[in-house]
Amino acid sequence: MKILVLGSEGYIGTALCTNLINNGHEVQGVDCFMRESNVNQMGSESLTERKSSLKEKVDLHILNIAKDYERLCNIIKNFNPNTIVHLAEQPSAAFSMCSPETASETQQNNVIGTLNVLWAMREHAPNSHLIKLGTEGEYPDWLWDGKHIPEGNRMTVKYNNEDWVIPTPRYAGSWYHFSKLHDSMNIDYACRIWGLKATDVNQGIVYGHLNNTRLDYDEAFGTVVNRFAVQAVLGHPLSIYGQGGQTRGFIALQNSIEAIELLAKNEPDPGQFRVIHQTTEEYSVNDIAGMIQGLTMCDIKHIKNPRAENDHNDFTFDNSTLMDLGLQPVKMEDVLPDLIQTVRANQDNIREEVILPKIKWN
Amino acid sequence: MKILVLGSEGYIGTALCTNLINNGHEVQGVDCFMRESNVNQMGSESLTERKSSLKEKVDLHILNIAKDYERLCNIIKNFNPNTIVHLAEQPSAAFSMCSPETASETQQNNVIGTLNVLWAMREHAPNSHLIKLGTEGEYPDWLWDGKHIPEGNRMTVKYNNEDWVIPTPRYAGSWYHFSKLHDSMNIDYACRIWGLKATDVNQGIVYGHLNNTRLDYDEAFGTVVNRFAVQAVLGHPLSIYGQGGQTRGFIALQNSIEAIELLAKNEPDPGQFRVIHQTTEEYSVNDIAGMIQGLTMCDIKHIKNPRAENDHNDFTFDNSTLMDLGLQPVKMEDVLPDLIQTVRANQDNIREEVILPKIKWN
Repeated sequence: MKILVLGSEGYIGTALCTNLINNGHEVQGVDCFMRESNVNQMGSESLTERKSSLKEKVDLHILNIAKDYERLCNIIKNFNPNTIVHLAEQPSAAFSMCSPETASETQQNNVIGTLNVLWAMREHAPNSHLIKLGTEGEYPDWLWDGKHIPEGNRMTVKYNNEDWVIPTPRYAGSWYHFSKLHDSMNIDYACRIWGLKATDVNQGIVYGHLNNTRLDYDEAFGTVVNRFAVQAVLGHPLSIYGQGGQTRGFIALQNSIEAIELLAKNEPDPGQFRVIHQTTEEYSVNDIAGMIQGLTMCDIKHIKNPRAENDHNDFTFDNSTLMDLGLQPVKMEDVLPDLIQTVRANQDNIREEVILPKIKWN
Repeated sequence: MKILVLGSEGYIGTALCTNLINNGHEVQGVDCFMRESNVNQMGSESLTERKSSLKEKVDLHILNIAKDYERLCNIIKNFNPNTIVHLAEQPSAAFSMCSPETASETQQNNVIGTLNVLWAMREHAPNSHLIKLGTEGEYPDWLWDGKHIPEGNRMTVKYNNEDWVIPTPRYAGSWYHFSKLHDSMNIDYACRIWGLKATDVNQGIVYGHLNNTRLDYDEAFGTVVNRFAVQAVLGHPLSIYGQGGQTRGFIALQNSIEAIELLAKNEPDPGQFRVIHQTTEEYSVNDIAGMIQGLTMCDIKHIKNPRAENDHNDFTFDNSTLMDLGLQPVKMEDVLPDLIQTVRANQDNIREEVILPKIKWN
């Protein structure tokens, strides 16, 4: 297949492109290195040396899709991809909560970037399949607590004793998460009125390391599992925000890129907005700390939660689409030893001062 | 009261500022004349000569709130308003559907502008009351057909036989309407995490003319009632899009500005996101054409609907908040003769070629 990866040089993008190329797909990438620049803005850099799968070849296009609609159109027109995987978004909730500038930058980049992709598809690739990376953070604790969260963009509830089909209720928990929700709605509408086909990938928290990817561990761009692994290797206590009863969906990086390829090979119908959960397991933050403690004998410390979130919640995700397509879930306990090994091998690069939270959400 | 009006030079803003000044409030305005420029881009201009209530005084600040956060902060800090009325948005659905550029411009201007207002309030005026102009277009035909649409940002439905409190379901019908929905969600979140207080004014289609306001009638910026009045005066048939069974909420300009003053005087609690319907009557497009035909004996012509909408729907809006505050609704049939009179008095300014629709939504 011909696959265009927007955000090809990020954490997922790098691993995805390598995998797609190894599996015989024709791949082109687009990136503007915003992730690298934003991580640097946090005073950090990737623990591992990232090696692009595309950089030395002609098929990496360096541009900001939110700011250069014409070049985006030309790339899509010339390559004529079967699938457009859109990862080119500012991915950090904490970063979006820092300041008015980072909040605006996040919503501007993500919402306008996606809107540009939709228009470019309408104009030049109406039969391409858009795979858009969203987040399970569109299903927040207070709204979905205690429930098994369905897939799909519509659901039926009862109102005034009658069945009522409504957009599956979503909300979010940061300016970043809201940017993803705004995206989801814009894509839903483009499928509805223009007949585009798209998959909205509500992904759990991704973790782990594959051979050429970056690995971030700062408070904004390091996800909880990767951050804990770094703390454990340093011999620091794992810093749990609040009580640690926050339950989230998780997926290993390896499964994330396998899932995207499966979705590319199995596309939705024209006009369909396919909303799925790309999550293989649910854990609380305490669960994860416990697993890493079991492997490293590290300490655990509860600190004041800087985020605006409940300290405890409980829900599960219906991930039937990916299970039916044959995704083989790997378990976190099987990935953690390799992750910790990678962190140990790069221990000298760790900047200790970037790990603990300084950004206050409230 | 001290009232800051963002978008003070637009259709509603001009009338609102005049009214607030006449009623003894201290008013400052912010505008960047985007409306005027966009109407010109449609090849049109206001039928009437607009006269600012503020322009000759020191209290009109000329800036784009989506692009100049620092100046917005300074204005809010120095004026320290009780109320911030936010009308500074690109208001045309059709304009947002023209091109990738107008779609991006609409979402960029509206979403980032509002986000800047929220941050500026958090930093400099956390006790101010934000009155944000939204639209009844956040309650679309396919979702709410046959229902009495409640006020409020949450509602209770049944799911798996249990009560479930969800965000009141909304969706939209153009890139413009989605920008308003994104705004609503961003404001909801700011109230939730920062304790701001805001009123989300879901306004019906506003119509009519007051002494110093602009009056647009082009396909993008002329609302249906004002456009029909111009067609009737020209002796052209009223152009109904499709079957004309589209039912919408309406409110006269006079009621719109009275309602905003009532809301300013009666603010929500800190942390409250008060979602209300600013609509006094519901009519179908056929109803309105019939009223104008009754007054002018004009013809009516159904043309292909360029919009992506159902040709028939039926719903009503709960407008209890404004009714309880004492708003005295004026009836469309009582406003139409004055509107037609104003159009007749300015008949020589009409550019006939801007009225019929050229923008295709699908």
